[in-house]
Amino acid sequence: MKDPGSELWPTCVVVGDDAQELPDAVAVEEPLEIHVGGQPLVVTMRTPGQDEELTAGWLYSEGLLACREDLLELRAGAGDTVQHSGSQPDDNVTSVRLRDERAVAAVRAARSFLSVAACGVCGKSAIEHVFARGLPALAPGRPRLDRAWLQALPDRMRAAQRVFSQTGGLHAAALFTANGALVALREDVGRHNAVDKVLGERLLAGALAADAASLADTVLILSGRAGFEIAQKAARAGIPVLAAVGAPSSLALRVAERVGMTVIGFLRPGRFNVYTGSDRVL
Amino acid sequence: MKDPGSELWPTCVVVGDDAQELPDAVAVEEPLEIHVGGQPLVVTMRTPGQDEELTAGWLYSEGLLACREDLLELRAGAGDTVQHSGSQPDDNVTSVRLRDERAVAAVRAARSFLSVAACGVCGKSAIEHVFARGLPALAPGRPRLDRAWLQALPDRMRAAQRVFSQTGGLHAAALFTANGALVALREDVGRHNAVDKVLGERLLAGALAADAASLADTVLILSGRAGFEIAQKAARAGIPVLAAVGAPSSLALRVAERVGMTVIGFLRPGRFNVYTGSDRVL
Repeated sequence: MKDPGSELWPTCVVVGDDAQELPDAVAVEEPLEIHVGGQPLVVTMRTPGQDEELTAGWLYSEGLLACREDLLELRAGAGDTVQHSGSQPDDNVTSVRLRDERAVAAVRAARSFLSVAACGVCGKSAIEHVFARGLPALAPGRPRLDRAWLQALPDRMRAAQRVFSQTGGLHAAALFTANGALVALREDVGRHNAVDKVLGERLLAGALAADAASLADTVLILSGRAGFEIAQKAARAGIPVLAAVGAPSSLALRVAERVGMTVIGFLRPGRFNVYTGSDRVL
Repeated sequence: MKDPGSELWPTCVVVGDDAQELPDAVAVEEPLEIHVGGQPLVVTMRTPGQDEELTAGWLYSEGLLACREDLLELRAGAGDTVQHSGSQPDDNVTSVRLRDERAVAAVRAARSFLSVAACGVCGKSAIEHVFARGLPALAPGRPRLDRAWLQALPDRMRAAQRVFSQTGGLHAAALFTANGALVALREDVGRHNAVDKVLGERLLAGALAADAASLADTVLILSGRAGFEIAQKAARAGIPVLAAVGAPSSLALRVAERVGMTVIGFLRPGRFNVYTGSDRVL
């Protein structure tokens, strides 16, 4: 089966003095339009392939879903219900019906510019906005993580990536249990999408409870950097440890500090930095 | 002077069996609110420090400015003219007056969700949307670039970065002339912001002409990956060569193909891939 996440592109590969025409696998980037209750809600640039997971995870991150039971219907492809002007098939549309769609209007408004502006003038206000939506409390000191175990995570993630990725152009997010099991690994051209796909996988598997305590013993690892948006998504899901191969941003650390989340950066064999919540690291 | 782009964070640095509390420089991420004609237009999460450049570059990318003369006023800090609810100083606001503000309403509408959705259902439509805004034509075969010169660019960029960056958490974009001179290097937590800052630097320096031919002999190099949005910004500025240390996305290549832009990926000493426009590479 063709992988919808990558595409062969005729490429001139230059190595030293040699140049050859070879097909190179590039990551596919296309817009996904999410419809809720028959109305478009958002467009995100994403790598196709796990559109249901991405949709469920995005709605979860926005607080429109708490568990699988909140999702009455989730279809990839718009079918007959959506009008749009393109002549392409509806591969880039997902349609959702929620048990309770009353909050959709507020999310739509919050994503339009003016209400972002109303609370987003300073970093402090942006954080207040996140907290206004209500985030689960994390249990301090749980899970307890071994240093050597942590340092091995990036290699374990890369080994898992090798199985289904050849483009080199994708961000990865992987959820591990503190016991060491890989729960889910997802990739995307957008790092926030990779995280939403992981959360959506858990939600669609029925593994997310309404009290958000079901991920209390997990670690989310990122192939790149950890910014505000990623920290916000992890906090919403009650994930106690965010570990990045790259650097965290200041605003991601402020979010983590407020919810009591552990943030690890520059994670690699032999070394890492613990920026917040070092009580979880043995 | 304190660098507004980084902040010292008390960090537990783990190296082997050793753990030490040390201050680590993390990249600052905060929202910038851009006001045009007294009204908020957009909020972007960015690294503070070159807010005027970022503002000018963002407006240029959106097609609201073509050259410095189109900019009647550009102030960092909102002063008394903007009402907002935060108690912080207005460090995260810039205010602009344009010679012609008639297109602002269309940009505002285009950035709200619904009109994105109207044209963004398939990748092809997204590209049509870009082209509908009018992009300058690039002269084929110009500039002509030497392979060894190209391969040296990432190291030259990193050397320039070392001068003013210690966080390891920033994306970089650098503009070089085909003669080899570094024109501008900018960094940000968001890679699109780094590109906007470079374009803004050129615009504020008076180096962008209304016909967008002034960058006809330049190369834009990126520390990371090249996606749709980056390709779109480079195309708008008439930059003929986009060279990324990371991978390009499929949609970035489709934009490049349409304007005749050269896209190079995985650029490093000893090798690189030319995805589009290989006529510019000797």
